[in-house]
Amino acid sequence: MIAKVEVKHVFAEDQRVAVVGATGAVGREALAILAERGFDKARVLALSSESSAGEVLRYGPDEVVASTFDPAALGAGDVVVLATSASHARSTAPTLVERGCRVVDNSSAFRLDPDVPLVVPEVNGHLAHGANLVANPNCSTILMVVALEPLRRAFGIERTVISTYQAVSGAGRAAMNELEVATRAALDGIDHVPKVFPETCAFNVFPHESELDPETGSNEEELKLVRETRRLWEDGRARIVATCARVPVLRSHCQSILVTFERSAARQEVRTALAQAPGLELVDQLAQRDFPSSLRAQGGDSVLVGRVRPASDEKIDAQGRTRSYCLWVAGDQLRKGAALNALQIASQSMP
Amino acid sequence: MIAKVEVKHVFAEDQRVAVVGATGAVGREALAILAERGFDKARVLALSSESSAGEVLRYGPDEVVASTFDPAALGAGDVVVLATSASHARSTAPTLVERGCRVVDNSSAFRLDPDVPLVVPEVNGHLAHGANLVANPNCSTILMVVALEPLRRAFGIERTVISTYQAVSGAGRAAMNELEVATRAALDGIDHVPKVFPETCAFNVFPHESELDPETGSNEEELKLVRETRRLWEDGRARIVATCARVPVLRSHCQSILVTFERSAARQEVRTALAQAPGLELVDQLAQRDFPSSLRAQGGDSVLVGRVRPASDEKIDAQGRTRSYCLWVAGDQLRKGAALNALQIASQSMP
Repeated sequence: MIAKVEVKHVFAEDQRVAVVGATGAVGREALAILAERGFDKARVLALSSESSAGEVLRYGPDEVVASTFDPAALGAGDVVVLATSASHARSTAPTLVERGCRVVDNSSAFRLDPDVPLVVPEVNGHLAHGANLVANPNCSTILMVVALEPLRRAFGIERTVISTYQAVSGAGRAAMNELEVATRAALDGIDHVPKVFPETCAFNVFPHESELDPETGSNEEELKLVRETRRLWEDGRARIVATCARVPVLRSHCQSILVTFERSAARQEVRTALAQAPGLELVDQLAQRDFPSSLRAQGGDSVLVGRVRPASDEKIDAQGRTRSYCLWVAGDQLRKGAALNALQIASQSMP
Repeated sequence: MIAKVEVKHVFAEDQRVAVVGATGAVGREALAILAERGFDKARVLALSSESSAGEVLRYGPDEVVASTFDPAALGAGDVVVLATSASHARSTAPTLVERGCRVVDNSSAFRLDPDVPLVVPEVNGHLAHGANLVANPNCSTILMVVALEPLRRAFGIERTVISTYQAVSGAGRAAMNELEVATRAALDGIDHVPKVFPETCAFNVFPHESELDPETGSNEEELKLVRETRRLWEDGRARIVATCARVPVLRSHCQSILVTFERSAARQEVRTALAQAPGLELVDQLAQRDFPSSLRAQGGDSVLVGRVRPASDEKIDAQGRTRSYCLWVAGDQLRKGAALNALQIASQSMP
């Protein structure tokens, strides 16, 4: 059973929540989460571009209709979740803040802005309190730091090596559609020309499609993982080595993580720290072969962590303690990786 | 263009090549490779269990018919590629060797047997010369060691951290079929009960399904990668940390590798070493976004290596040298990961 993460305070009596980009993958998920929590439909504003306005969107068993986003219609007390592009967020967020809204931006626009807190509630939720603009980290960053936070607190982290297995949803609804269409075409032996991705995503794994940094050879997704995590951990020199790839999966990311602690720990200590931490679920039953997977994480709120095992090349002391552990992580990219984290921030930003 | 790797000497005038397990995924690939190289169909024996005998198999544009495997029908001078289970290989290989055959076994039966050489031609091909029984390593091991060999020779390897993205073909033809059937079912919203894998493979990533070692928490695939590589490198203490996962891909594995050298190297030195090495192809064009992917490797002979970049957390000296590099690798599991390597060994085992 995957527990429902609380989204507190948003439920204040006259609170309105505006989802901008409501017809997109993250926007739709934000509506789903609000509906699940019983948030009154009358206080939800599903906002979109003019061209998408009028689209009928699911709101739990009910529906809402997208209307055109107009900053002038929002004001003091409104919570705004921006699930739009970075350039749109850059031009819109300051206006909304001026108008007295509390804004959580899901784009990369403000993530490295020292004046805007970057928040994952399980890591540094206090930074959201009273803030009128908060940046939501990249999906891969969120999932990784939630998995690592209890270990960072208990044992300190010296180095993290991560390889990601990323669902196509991170590239939006068009990408999710492309995976389905391309897969059908592949099964039927029909050619399909990719539009969203640089190559076909059907039955294929390829490096993440984000922009490449010619100097380091890293792609933007890898740089985000490093830079955002350093900000969240308030450690500008945190050692993180990231490799990001796309897999033909709809909406959950997996991550293979090798973490080296500052202090040695026994396997059971690591498991206990993980089992007790908020926002994550230890899924690690060898006998039942119960481990995190993309589908197991899909639609859930928790980051799933399992396959907790000492790195095979490190010395283990007489007490069973060692410093490096492998972890296998899965999380829903659209929920904790985006919409859920944003709504948690929104609820924590309330004064 | 993917170059055809030579399969020398097998073409000796009266040489017969028997493929045992010819109706399986690796067996069929062995036939495809022999046909591609123009090996005379009359000298190919496609052998199978009694229940599969009579199956018509492709031999290039031509066909061959599977007949029941009978060790007594094989003898001195015959090359036998065993593409069957480990238990079958264990009971059959000694008989075939006694009968004077040269046997290459694709199963795990003899891989750790000190009396049987374990061979990847690009690494330790000389061990195959004159041997009458040679073990073919596990697919993930082969792809990794081919990618790393030129770097090991040039710079020495201190540590390897690998996360795999493994195609379903490693679990055989039934698994490839299951991926297609399960994917169609998922697209059509129909339930599908997995038979080969512990959970559905459609649009899903999960830990490798091989047996788990309760003591270390590693699965058999991860242990194979460590143990077989140590044998191939003749270094029983080589530091290798492996995490193996299945991805919904038909027949090519990808690998995310972080390798730490004994000696520092500049990025261009690493690329040059890779570009000149046999059995692999450097696919690493940032401007064109040309990198290894599952589909790019599919059907090819070479191991593709790209995204060569220094680990982001290591110091780079004034000459641009550092000790840790990330690599992104892809290779066809059925070809270089299995059938092709076995046939290369067979050709090198000729006295």
